[in-house]
Amino acid sequence: MTPFPELQALVEQRIADFRNNQPVTSLTESIHYLMGIGGKRMRPVLTLMGCEALGGRPADALDAALAVEVFHNFTLMHDDIMDQAPLRRGQPTVHTRWNVNTAILSGDAMMIQAYQLLAGYPAGQLRTMLHLFNESAFGVCAGQQMDMDFEKRADVTVPEYIEMIRLKTAVLLGCALDLGACVAGASESQMIHLRQFGEHLGISFQLRDDYLDAFGDPEKFGKQVGGDILADKKTYLLIRALDKADAGQRDELHRMSGSTCSPDDKVTRTREIFRDLGADEEILAESGRYYTSALTHLDALGLPPAQIDPLRMLAAQLLERES
Amino acid sequence: MTPFPELQALVEQRIADFRNNQPVTSLTESIHYLMGIGGKRMRPVLTLMGCEALGGRPADALDAALAVEVFHNFTLMHDDIMDQAPLRRGQPTVHTRWNVNTAILSGDAMMIQAYQLLAGYPAGQLRTMLHLFNESAFGVCAGQQMDMDFEKRADVTVPEYIEMIRLKTAVLLGCALDLGACVAGASESQMIHLRQFGEHLGISFQLRDDYLDAFGDPEKFGKQVGGDILADKKTYLLIRALDKADAGQRDELHRMSGSTCSPDDKVTRTREIFRDLGADEEILAESGRYYTSALTHLDALGLPPAQIDPLRMLAAQLLERES
Repeated sequence: MTPFPELQALVEQRIADFRNNQPVTSLTESIHYLMGIGGKRMRPVLTLMGCEALGGRPADALDAALAVEVFHNFTLMHDDIMDQAPLRRGQPTVHTRWNVNTAILSGDAMMIQAYQLLAGYPAGQLRTMLHLFNESAFGVCAGQQMDMDFEKRADVTVPEYIEMIRLKTAVLLGCALDLGACVAGASESQMIHLRQFGEHLGISFQLRDDYLDAFGDPEKFGKQVGGDILADKKTYLLIRALDKADAGQRDELHRMSGSTCSPDDKVTRTREIFRDLGADEEILAESGRYYTSALTHLDALGLPPAQIDPLRMLAAQLLERES
Repeated sequence: MTPFPELQALVEQRIADFRNNQPVTSLTESIHYLMGIGGKRMRPVLTLMGCEALGGRPADALDAALAVEVFHNFTLMHDDIMDQAPLRRGQPTVHTRWNVNTAILSGDAMMIQAYQLLAGYPAGQLRTMLHLFNESAFGVCAGQQMDMDFEKRADVTVPEYIEMIRLKTAVLLGCALDLGACVAGASESQMIHLRQFGEHLGISFQLRDDYLDAFGDPEKFGKQVGGDILADKKTYLLIRALDKADAGQRDELHRMSGSTCSPDDKVTRTREIFRDLGADEEILAESGRYYTSALTHLDALGLPPAQIDPLRMLAAQLLERES
């Protein structure tokens, strides 16, 4: 199997070609910019891995991989407007560096470019790939809408939260893997299991990310620890804590929400309550259950261990990370 | 051939089904709203006419027709944000009635829905339809970008202006016709001629619209006559007038641009200058040339007159309209 760094290099080269092959206009310069400021390229590498696991050549899945990465970056461009985010990967966001109109329109153009990349596949594969991509893309939008709706709601439940992160984050990982598998000629049943592997891994990953956001080691975690707490984000931790809290704890959590008390105090005290109520253990257990389920679906592919080992190793790395 | 009102009724019924078949969520309610506030449904009817002209059954092209209409409404939803437009078809725009984030995200979802509608076509047709649709959709974005860029430029030329309206308006008319023709099994050469018919008709139409915006009968023209002049829009009329103006006239046009002089005076005086310089005659002549070219491409389809008569009649109606 092709080593992970080699797959990453293939993706980077394909992205460089994509950037070099389109003229720089006022419509595309912000696309060049956003596609050029890095990221882990996790999704496109998953497409290549999905292809290789099913016996295909990674190079044949490169355009599908790029379609997923372009689509992902389109969602970042538009989400950053909606979230009024000033920075992305440490660089100014497109709507900050240019303006909101440019970020809207160039984002639209990127979504079309993603479809252009898919449209090059043979007619026989194209229909399956397009259905999969459409369903996933619509799901990502629905997930972003749920996330925004949650900000105005006080009664978000755990199943709703899981469904939101499934749509917003996990669905595209499953789609990325399955597009590669489709290029390799996977069966319908294999595509279902591989997609479930990707989705459950994505949910597991996001729950662990929520845990690290509150309890991670500031030295190792890339973002500000406590960021979700300070932003009053309705994560699994807060939802479960509110479920289990007694009247006093619930009052305290509500009082701190949106309050102007010292940030350090708010993070420290909220973490204490999360721990007292066992929400920290619960989120890790839930993340673990999705991880186990992901691996079950990987085994259900019915492929020789050597072919799925890279995916198993990647899953383990994602879940053991501390940053 | 199916009468125009019957084709319109088919489209309206398909739109009603589309609206009824999707659950109303915070993501889709603004889509329901925008798709429900009417419009002439010109583009989807063109798809049905393109299909029937090439010997197909209009009903078979209904999903492609709806894809074009959903895509068109997506562009309206996003353009209205960019143009800060308060009203669309006399009703509040989506970003006004809801908010900018909803208009961005629901617009994104609509673009995906357009692709979902196309994805139902047989694999053999799908590839051609997808290529055509992608190219046209990207062109529409490029046209909107050019239009926005023109606001900041003083040196826009006539060819640039024509290219902008071709991309922003005309390309989607050609695409609409060709999607229908593709469903009917048109040859490559027929698709080229039909697309050119649509594009040249679209340019002719837009030039006539520019003329009516300045010189139309206020009783008959739907929009405020003189709107482009008051908004200092760089239309064909202004570009040609500035080309031909003497120093005094050029000064006067520049002085009135962005000025706070009485709106009535500005419209009246600008119209006088346009007339003195013959820009009014020129724009009608240019519109006429594109109309003639459109009809030439219609004839080049090599079809029996009875099959293309509905398109010829529609073209004549579009060009003779005064509103």
